[in-house]
Amino acid sequence: MSPINLAIVGVGKIVRDQHLPSIANNPDFKLVATASRHGTVEGIPAFTTIEAMLDAVPAIDAVSLCMPPQYRYEAAYKALSAGKHVFLEKPPGATLSEVADLENLAKTKGVSLFASWHSRYAPAVEAAKAFLADTTIRSVHVIWKEDVRHWHPNQEWIWQAGGLGVFDPGINALSIVTHIFPALFLTGATLEFPENRDSPIAADLHFRSGQGLPVHAEFDWRQTGKQSWDIVAETDAGQMVLSEGGSKLSVNGELTFSAPEAEYPSLYRRFAEIVKAGVSDVDVSPLRHVADAFMLGKRKFVEAFHD
Amino acid sequence: MSPINLAIVGVGKIVRDQHLPSIANNPDFKLVATASRHGTVEGIPAFTTIEAMLDAVPAIDAVSLCMPPQYRYEAAYKALSAGKHVFLEKPPGATLSEVADLENLAKTKGVSLFASWHSRYAPAVEAAKAFLADTTIRSVHVIWKEDVRHWHPNQEWIWQAGGLGVFDPGINALSIVTHIFPALFLTGATLEFPENRDSPIAADLHFRSGQGLPVHAEFDWRQTGKQSWDIVAETDAGQMVLSEGGSKLSVNGELTFSAPEAEYPSLYRRFAEIVKAGVSDVDVSPLRHVADAFMLGKRKFVEAFHD
Repeated sequence: MSPINLAIVGVGKIVRDQHLPSIANNPDFKLVATASRHGTVEGIPAFTTIEAMLDAVPAIDAVSLCMPPQYRYEAAYKALSAGKHVFLEKPPGATLSEVADLENLAKTKGVSLFASWHSRYAPAVEAAKAFLADTTIRSVHVIWKEDVRHWHPNQEWIWQAGGLGVFDPGINALSIVTHIFPALFLTGATLEFPENRDSPIAADLHFRSGQGLPVHAEFDWRQTGKQSWDIVAETDAGQMVLSEGGSKLSVNGELTFSAPEAEYPSLYRRFAEIVKAGVSDVDVSPLRHVADAFMLGKRKFVEAFHD
Repeated sequence: MSPINLAIVGVGKIVRDQHLPSIANNPDFKLVATASRHGTVEGIPAFTTIEAMLDAVPAIDAVSLCMPPQYRYEAAYKALSAGKHVFLEKPPGATLSEVADLENLAKTKGVSLFASWHSRYAPAVEAAKAFLADTTIRSVHVIWKEDVRHWHPNQEWIWQAGGLGVFDPGINALSIVTHIFPALFLTGATLEFPENRDSPIAADLHFRSGQGLPVHAEFDWRQTGKQSWDIVAETDAGQMVLSEGGSKLSVNGELTFSAPEAEYPSLYRRFAEIVKAGVSDVDVSPLRHVADAFMLGKRKFVEAFHD
């Protein structure tokens, strides 16, 4: 099979850091065009709009959409309508309804849609899942606490309504949680909004499963010093800690699995796989939990946040 | 086929006003038990919990769950696990994730789950749908404005986080909108919260379809005098007005369809139909739009509300 002719829309930091090296090292893909208002990739035909790109390069088979979620639907609709496979950066959209619509469109057009969740491909996630499958889980504690000033300096869009605030990193935790634990739903939530912002800076979430497994998640963007991206499960086989955003697995304090980070290479392997199989991979459950938290959550107002 | 042995959980005003007469007049159902903390139905075995009821009356085939949404999952899980068909009052749950979980459970158990939307069965809804199918729609305006003091006097739960506020009636409009128009998604929203309440008293919502159809919805709970439950569509065949909550259809000012209200009798006919066919009917799209509105919407604080 000849490589999949791929185009990228929205050439920014994540594309340069992650997408381009992953594509370059994957023989299943050949980068043939980009569309971006400002960014370009050396040696690759560049356009400023997706329409111009799709018109000029009919050989495009698939498109990776890497712009902020607020602008993603429009581009995805055009690409799918033109019969192209589509890779969506996380989160797959600004609303659940638009993702449902795109999923139907992909089905109608007979192309593959991929709602990517990079944290699911963190090195130790599958090892954690395998460990949990062989034991009984008693409770889960998710701690996702980082310094927004370090990770998102002066990013205005993330604080606007629809920008998701602390759920932007928190959804990474939820993408792992929904992959390794039984189906959960929210039973209560408190969202803390800085009094000068439209998105939350912290969230405290209580979930349970149908069988009653309690899961407590704490997301906070005000953490200075050591950053925490940990999932702790108390089980009949001991305490499991999946730490550093899914990179390391420990059981009862002993490191049992660790491997080099390779999230984006894995995402592109998965994308090639679903394109070849002629299927889509759209799991909205992480975004659905976020929407549920906004719908069900109690709002609390806290100190103003200034970058 | 002998009648479906039905039980009701949560015997309150809506049960007395709507469910009981609809069940009594439908030969497909026989009411055999109720479970409710306080309410009972004359001549029908009454229990105070669903567990006691399911234990005592194994002949129950199906259960209608009519308590507030915050308590519905637990009961639905028990009923489905016991192999009973389940009728959910609207909205089907407090979160989208729990409804997805129940839908999977119903499938596993081989029973029918019905997420009911009574306004979809308002008399003129199908006539509106048929009218729209034969023309091109240019724009839609939804006006759902009522007096909360009249319709929900001193109902504290509706103002609590998760109580949905003005979306409690607004979801009725959305259940019609999602039934008669193409798939939509939210592009912008403003939610007005009384400064002393956790749920919105008004919402201004802008939707569009994939093809670009603009839909504007206004929900407001501060309407005194004439109440408005209208959906207005500008089309190539003229202006269509579906008014009085779906009761009357007019085109270019002329009444073209009207019939007596029969929403709950229709819901029970539909429930019998899906039970006989061995399928579920769970369309979460109205609730999904509500969750999207909470996630995407800008919050505005307005005057305190006192009953």
